[in-house]
Order: sequence, then structure tokens, then C-alpha cells
Amino acid sequence: MKVRAAVLEQFAEPLVVQELDLAEPRAGEALVRLQACGVCHTDMYTASGADPSGYAPTVLGHEGAGVVEAVGEGVSSLSVGDHVVTLFSPQCRECAHCLNPRTNLCLAIREQQNLGYLPDGTTRLSRAGEPIRHFMGTSTFCEYSVMPEIALAKVDPEAPPDRACLFACGLSTGLGAAMFTAGVTPGSTCVVFGAGMVGLGAVAGCRLREAGRIVCVDPSEPRRELARAQGATECWPADGHVVERVLELTKGFGADYTFEATGLVSVMAEAVAAARMGWGLSTIIGVAGKGETLDIVPRLLITGRRVCGSSFGGLKGRDQVPDLIQLYLQGQVEVDQFISHRMPLDEVNRAFELMARQDGIRSVLTFDGGA
Amino acid sequence: MKVRAAVLEQFAEPLVVQELDLAEPRAGEALVRLQACGVCHTDMYTASGADPSGYAPTVLGHEGAGVVEAVGEGVSSLSVGDHVVTLFSPQCRECAHCLNPRTNLCLAIREQQNLGYLPDGTTRLSRAGEPIRHFMGTSTFCEYSVMPEIALAKVDPEAPPDRACLFACGLSTGLGAAMFTAGVTPGSTCVVFGAGMVGLGAVAGCRLREAGRIVCVDPSEPRRELARAQGATECWPADGHVVERVLELTKGFGADYTFEATGLVSVMAEAVAAARMGWGLSTIIGVAGKGETLDIVPRLLITGRRVCGSSFGGLKGRDQVPDLIQLYLQGQVEVDQFISHRMPLDEVNRAFELMARQDGIRSVLTFDGGA
Repeated sequence: MKVRAAVLEQFAEPLVVQELDLAEPRAGEALVRLQACGVCHTDMYTASGADPSGYAPTVLGHEGAGVVEAVGEGVSSLSVGDHVVTLFSPQCRECAHCLNPRTNLCLAIREQQNLGYLPDGTTRLSRAGEPIRHFMGTSTFCEYSVMPEIALAKVDPEAPPDRACLFACGLSTGLGAAMFTAGVTPGSTCVVFGAGMVGLGAVAGCRLREAGRIVCVDPSEPRRELARAQGATECWPADGHVVERVLELTKGFGADYTFEATGLVSVMAEAVAAARMGWGLSTIIGVAGKGETLDIVPRLLITGRRVCGSSFGGLKGRDQVPDLIQLYLQGQVEVDQFISHRMPLDEVNRAFELMARQDGIRSVLTFDGGA
Repeated sequence: MKVRAAVLEQFAEPLVVQELDLAEPRAGEALVRLQACGVCHTDMYTASGADPSGYAPTVLGHEGAGVVEAVGEGVSSLSVGDHVVTLFSPQCRECAHCLNPRTNLCLAIREQQNLGYLPDGTTRLSRAGEPIRHFMGTSTFCEYSVMPEIALAKVDPEAPPDRACLFACGLSTGLGAAMFTAGVTPGSTCVVFGAGMVGLGAVAGCRLREAGRIVCVDPSEPRRELARAQGATECWPADGHVVERVLELTKGFGADYTFEATGLVSVMAEAVAAARMGWGLSTIIGVAGKGETLDIVPRLLITGRRVCGSSFGGLKGRDQVPDLIQLYLQGQVEVDQFISHRMPLDEVNRAFELMARQDGIRSVLTFDGGA
């Protein structure tokens, strides 16, 4: 079939929206009609050419929500008409990692996905017979996409797709980092560095876990306002004195949980230093620049601070994304405020421009019937 | 009373063994007749002047075992004749940290201890009326010492003091890091960097926790031999290819648990990189040089590795040192091989010289009746 898609032709050039060929789903795959898709930093990062594992041409996009239109042979967990959220972090339910409660890093299709192929090592996307590679196993900047069954979470059809799509990446990453990776405990003191989509999700996750105190740190006043709405009890500018202020707030001990959601290694170091002596846990969520390191004074560790990272919020996507969407439908997570701009696929480059100047939290591409 | 003690008079100078005055124990304190005392790197580190929080004059020593000779007012957990091991890391059983299972960093006397005073802010040691400060709350390079009740673990009198004293610091630190801080699980793959007292203790701790595979890395062949005796299943030289070899051994994944017991930040970084994707835990035990940092590529964290530190093996000393000594008495921990040299207090400077040239694992000072 013919589909309109936003293609990364050359790094550091605008995406080119054009018609491509999309083949039928093969065994273990499903054809999804996209209804909405968030535009995430990872898309822009790859488009810029900064990602050393990036490739072109490819169809970007990974924060999608849509409806199953067809399924390939052997697909048992999805049927035509199911509402789905895409999973750049799949869940096969069979590999050593999926069977282990300690990690969500499914091993099943990692290698092919990283190279831009579907699990059988080929693509469904092409142009005049030339294969076009998939991106993060999803390629959702497209009217339709073929994805592995294990990369699709079946969700409640009541969830509006323009909100549901945010659970495909940023929002789930933040919520999950607090709720599952760190496992915030009731009454605890938490500090979240960064109030973008991920940081705001972490604030909401801390609130859902009944933290006693939630500090959110961000240089932008409008973003701090959003953090308040998500449950932050205190919001501070990023003024270089954050660690000091956390220590003052906690009788010199530090916070039980800190979260870094900026991707800046200097902020990661602050998050570690702000964690509590004895048991403070610092969860790193942001993606650092190439070659950068998080430099830790070992004494901070010896005196009881711990450091971990979180990928997709530690979520096993097919099992847990539907649960988070239920929390949204029950009114426990406020999502509307995250959608700053809605636009059609053809304006995807404008979404990148808005992101580059930090205008709003998320631009969502909406397809026919998606908003 | 008059006691012979090894005094640090000037940084970077030999200790001077001499007679000092020791006052009676006050409320909450006990007088201990030392029988044996290990000579640990921390003693030498402070003697060198490298420790920014060091002070002089003071009586060094913190790895002691002895017998209670007198107790001050209100002491309820110790009686005259009890055999004890000294605890530089005390356990008051009442502070917020002692009541919390997540940390062993007792807060009760921290501040005074760090300044060289007993909990009431004074010293029992003096010379011609001039107060001489205590060291790590213990000052065990001395025939007798007065210590806080909360800094003494009552142990089985069957344990020979020259072995028991090793549980006061190095050995417990290594054992506990594996058994309690990391909580090594049966069948797991562990890598221990460094085969000094602490690293060898960690190897033994991994064995006691029934690890499936225990790799120990050390440049010294005789030390690797000791690691084999403690239960290491593989011993490697520190040849710069350790991470690579760990990945080969583990199908590219890394080790479930890694332990750093060298104090070198470059080795700490290896320990983090050798930990398993998904859930590998790297436990930092060594004390790094002043101003040095452990530099971590954040991607290692995002893909599931975790980093923590361990102080005194995470042990709550009064509760758990006696248990470790029982393991020794039951033959589950081999201790004799750690004692490379025995010597009287007067030869304490020779013990430092042996340590400086890495001759053996531990020199133990023995007092009358201690060996």
C-alpha cells in the first residue's frame, strides 16, 4: 500500500514528507493505522546526526497510538480493531530478561531493531523498490506502520489517541522511573531535576507513590508551574545551589530519591550529591551527550548513596503501559497539559523547531480521526 | 593508669611508642585490655598526613580485640571479663539510622568521634596533663583503651583474639559487602577487584552466599593464590583486559555482582563496566584518593547497571560482628592465612613498612596473652 511518511533523508536536514510503499505484515507483525504520534527528543537527536548509531534514510517516530488494521501469521495477542500504543522497548515475554522481574530490557529483537530492520532482518518500507529502514522498531511518523506484535501494547479504546501516545515514551518513562525503577516509598522526600515530559512524569510518579515532599527543579517558570500541577510541593529554579538547598530542607541528610531528567551530566552529579546519606537512591533517566561521563566522588557512595538508571521507566511495556493508561482514565494522571501543540504530519519539522526552542512540552502529530 | 601506646606525633613520621595516662571509663564507656590489633591501611593513611580530616597527636589503631576490665556508669550490655571486638563504626541501636534496616551508619557519636573525642567531647588519654586525642573512637595501638559501650561488640571468648581482631575492620568489610550490602544471590557470577584483606573477605562472602562463579582480579600471584583458597573459582591478573574477559565469560552480558576493593578510581570504573546489563550491581568498597572521581558513562546505568558503596560491609556491628565470628568458629571462614606477621606493639612501624611494600595481608600486634 501507499502511505505518507516523514523521511529522514540526510542528517541535519528537514524531514521530507512523501509517499512510500508499505508491505503487508509478515509472521508476528501487525499493520497499525496511526492516529496520533508525539514528537520526542530522540527523534530530533537522530535527525541531527548526533546519534552515532543513527542511519538514513529512515522513517522516524516512536511515540505512536493507533488501531490494528491487519495481523500477520501467528499473531495471537492482537486483533483487527484493537487500540494500541507503540513500544520502542518491546516485551517478548519469553527471553531471559522478560522472564526476570529485575529488568525490562527485552532481548528478542534488539539487534535487528538497532539496525533498522524488523525481526526477520528486512523492511516493510520501501521507495521504488529500495528498502527504507524502520526506526526504533516503530517508524510512527507515518499514516500506517508495520510493527512486531511484541512492540505493541493493547490499550483501552476509551483513551483518546493524542493522550495515549504520550505513554509510548516520555510520560511512561518518567512515571515508571519513580514508580517502578526507584519504587518511591510513601512519605519520602524526592527531588526531580528537569520538568520536561520525563521529569513531569517522574513528579506524577512520586505523587502516585505518596511521597511526602516532591521538589522539582527547572530553569523555566512555566515548566515549574506544570510541575506544581503534577504534584510538586516545591519548585526551584536551577540556580547552582540546589544541593545546598536540598540539604537545608532535610536537616543535612539529603533526599531519599532523586531523579535526573535533563541529560546533562552536571545535573546528574547534582542528583547524586543531593541523595540521602545512608540510603538515598539517584535514578538517572536523561540521555547524556556522546563521550560525556557522570563523575562521582566515591565518598558519596561509601556513605550510602546509590545510583541507577532507568530505561522506559523500567516498564515491561505490554503488561504495564495498559495499567498506566487506566490510571489516566481514572483521573489519576493529568495528561492534557503536556500537549502544547497539535499538528498534521506535514508540519513535523515545525514540531522540531518548537522543541529546539523549548516551546511547550510536546507537539503531537494527529492523523485523520486522531484528535 | 599508665599505659604504653603508639602515638602519632607528627604526620609522615614514625609512631612513637611511649607511656601515656589513661583515665577511668566514664558513663557509657568501658575500659578494654587489648590482646591483639590488626594494622590497617586507614592507620597508615592517617599517619601519612594524606587524610584531610586527620589530627595529631593521637593514638592510632582501630582493629582491636580484647577483654573488658571495667565499665562506667550505665553500661548494661558489657560486663568485666567479656571478650570484645572494637567498632570504629558503632551501633547505638537508638538513632534514626540504627533503627533503619537500610544503613549501618550510626549517627550517635559521629561528630565527636571524627574530631578525636569520646562522646562527651573529652579524651581519656593524656600526657602530663595534655589531652591526647582518640582515633576512630578506638585507639587500639595501646595496651588498654577506653571506648564507648556502643563501639564494642561482645564476641564468643572461644575466638582467639589475633583472629577476632580482623573482624573489627577489613575482613568484616569484605564479607559484609558481599553478604549484606550487595546481598549476593546463589548461582550468581561475581567479580572481585583486589585481593587484599577486604577483597579476600568479599571473595569469602560471595562463597558463603553460594555464588556460582567467583572471579578475583589482582596483580599479585601470591594474593591470587589466597583468593583461590577463599573460594575464587577463577583468578586473573590485572592486565587491562578484565572487562573484556568478564564479557567473554558471561556471553557478553557482564557479572551479576562486582566489587571494587583497591581504592583506585580506574578500577572502580572497570567494576562498573564489568557489571551485567539489566541488573548488575557494582559495590565500591575502596577509599579513593582525595579529589579523585569515579567517571561513569551514563549509558551503562540506563542499560541497567547499578552502583553503590559499602562502609564496614553494611554491618550493624554489635549485632552482626558476633555472627561473623561464629561463622569463623564453625570453620566457614578461613582466617589464619590472613595473618602474615605477628609482632609486639613496639614494632608497629615495621608493620607499616611491611604494608607499604605489600608484604603479606595483615600484620597483627599482639599484647601479653594475645596470641
